[in-house]
Amino acid sequence: MKVDGIHTRSIWSLDNGQAVGIVDQTLLPFKFEKKILRTWREIQEAIGNMRVRGAPLIGIAGAWGMVMAIKESPEDEAIHEARSALIATRPTAVDLQWGVDRIVTRVMSFEPHERFNEAVRLAEKMTQENVIANRAIGTHGAKLIAQIYAQKREPVNILTHCNAGWLATVDFGTALSAIYIAMEQGIPLHVWVDETRPRNQGLLTAWELAAHGVPHTLIVDNAGGHLMQHRDVDMVIVGADRITSAGDVANKIGTYLKALAARDMDVPFYVAAPSSTIDWSISDGKHGITIENRSADEIRYVTGVNEQGQVERVAIVGADTNVENPAFDVTPARLVTAIITERGVCSPEDLMQLFPEEAHQA
Amino acid sequence: MKVDGIHTRSIWSLDNGQAVGIVDQTLLPFKFEKKILRTWREIQEAIGNMRVRGAPLIGIAGAWGMVMAIKESPEDEAIHEARSALIATRPTAVDLQWGVDRIVTRVMSFEPHERFNEAVRLAEKMTQENVIANRAIGTHGAKLIAQIYAQKREPVNILTHCNAGWLATVDFGTALSAIYIAMEQGIPLHVWVDETRPRNQGLLTAWELAAHGVPHTLIVDNAGGHLMQHRDVDMVIVGADRITSAGDVANKIGTYLKALAARDMDVPFYVAAPSSTIDWSISDGKHGITIENRSADEIRYVTGVNEQGQVERVAIVGADTNVENPAFDVTPARLVTAIITERGVCSPEDLMQLFPEEAHQA
Repeated sequence: MKVDGIHTRSIWSLDNGQAVGIVDQTLLPFKFEKKILRTWREIQEAIGNMRVRGAPLIGIAGAWGMVMAIKESPEDEAIHEARSALIATRPTAVDLQWGVDRIVTRVMSFEPHERFNEAVRLAEKMTQENVIANRAIGTHGAKLIAQIYAQKREPVNILTHCNAGWLATVDFGTALSAIYIAMEQGIPLHVWVDETRPRNQGLLTAWELAAHGVPHTLIVDNAGGHLMQHRDVDMVIVGADRITSAGDVANKIGTYLKALAARDMDVPFYVAAPSSTIDWSISDGKHGITIENRSADEIRYVTGVNEQGQVERVAIVGADTNVENPAFDVTPARLVTAIITERGVCSPEDLMQLFPEEAHQA
Repeated sequence: MKVDGIHTRSIWSLDNGQAVGIVDQTLLPFKFEKKILRTWREIQEAIGNMRVRGAPLIGIAGAWGMVMAIKESPEDEAIHEARSALIATRPTAVDLQWGVDRIVTRVMSFEPHERFNEAVRLAEKMTQENVIANRAIGTHGAKLIAQIYAQKREPVNILTHCNAGWLATVDFGTALSAIYIAMEQGIPLHVWVDETRPRNQGLLTAWELAAHGVPHTLIVDNAGGHLMQHRDVDMVIVGADRITSAGDVANKIGTYLKALAARDMDVPFYVAAPSSTIDWSISDGKHGITIENRSADEIRYVTGVNEQGQVERVAIVGADTNVENPAFDVTPARLVTAIITERGVCSPEDLMQLFPEEAHQA
């Protein structure tokens, strides 16, 4: 998507795969800076410190981490060492292991001197596939926005939670992809952006939308229900961290509350995600998905710009205050109007019909 | 309630009504400081800059403002001038006008030289009545907590939103009064404290509870639904800014989302408020209650303690980001298990039976 009028991706290769560029997301939304990474240790640091974040993007960054490792040494031992170290950087991120192992599995069937070129080819392909899948999700999602516009004939108000935009993927995003494609098609729209405490990923969403020129308004997480009560929201679209075979959706903490309000006020609630997000081995999300409890510091500290214009963090509570920080929640399938995948839109209970080849796993 | 082991109120009189003391709430939770106010202009400043806040407390502060004005000059003209100025400080606060006018109406039937003593007597009475009403609310509410404990035999987990504690009243509070009284009765309990963006009144609640020794945990507003799904919440108790005759409840933005989750997960949802909060002239809250949109700066800036230990505010978004900030929402009566008043507990539809003398207004 565009930043200052220039098409930008969250990750890209340089010098025929000798290096990768990233947008340093730890500085956003306060500063937009790119960073060039030339070694797998630099990529490991970027993943660990969340300079790159978002499940799909971490997978691609992991793949490029392996490419850099193979550049350094294409021998089996070196590859296995880098593989373990990269995966351990964020042990719960399934996508990271997926991205790393796809490269490792491929290159192992080649001679060491052929491995680098092979790894670059596959990493480029994976990067491109991510963009294609996200664009397909966006195209399917945009039809839903167009349908509402066809009835309403006024700008469509879409509420989103967290950041499921291009910053969390290679490009387009998932939930925001639908919005970008709808914009491209000339459908008038406006996005309500949930702040998304505690990590305030809504600020990334607001930054993305502003950079691409999409009309939007930032609200606190508490406000969405009130807006739906007053008919100021036509639809909700969110991303997902994991979807069960029965259509239960694990996503950023607070998603469930918005789904409840949407149901109470008859607002359609959509989840946009690539099929790789579906965990066919689990049906019941509430009992099957373990919810990560993250550091209290995420709630304790808030980062912003001080009066002197410097980025600074302030503590809103002292270290003696007990804090609990569950990072995700599960929205039961009964509250989900439909799931938007790269293959099309379906109700949560029809996921297996849309992906019959996966049904045997469920 | 207690602070550092010393019983403290949010407002108190000094020197036979010659002055009032307050807790300066603009410094909380970062600094606990009392302030002595000796003129009505100082009280006006304290109300305007929210050194005192919370509907019931503002009413009492307004009454004391009039006492200070009469001390300065008991003549009609001076009284009317101070009255208008005080009320204009926060024009939408019904309680402020109520508190100011109760004093004015009373003293007008006395000779100027008798007015000061009369005003002090009434202001003391109003202050005391507030404490008595809140204590009664707490006693009724504590029974509900005791009932859950009787079944569960483990600490009762109570979720609350915003600050409905002693800081928002003279003492005890409304929702928190039930918790303080239950503690006093030896019922083991634990409070989940919603951060309550954008103004973070949850930090005041956490500070109050810590100062009085009540076990509690701070969470972001997004987390409550997830906790209810996992049976970590036994009941919700919140305060109210206005309750309609049909039992619809206007309260801090985000209350409605918690009420939805409570209903979805069969968790009882209670509203604690004095009967003065009931607006008998309105039945339908969603259409009858106008929701105040407050300054974008409340979302834009977050105040905390910087690395140097100084209280500082940082901007989390720039002035070019569009922000909307509705301050309250309306929870429909159908989601409210019961309302706790000084006269007892009743389901929202039975409010008029509990207050038959008010029914003619409805």
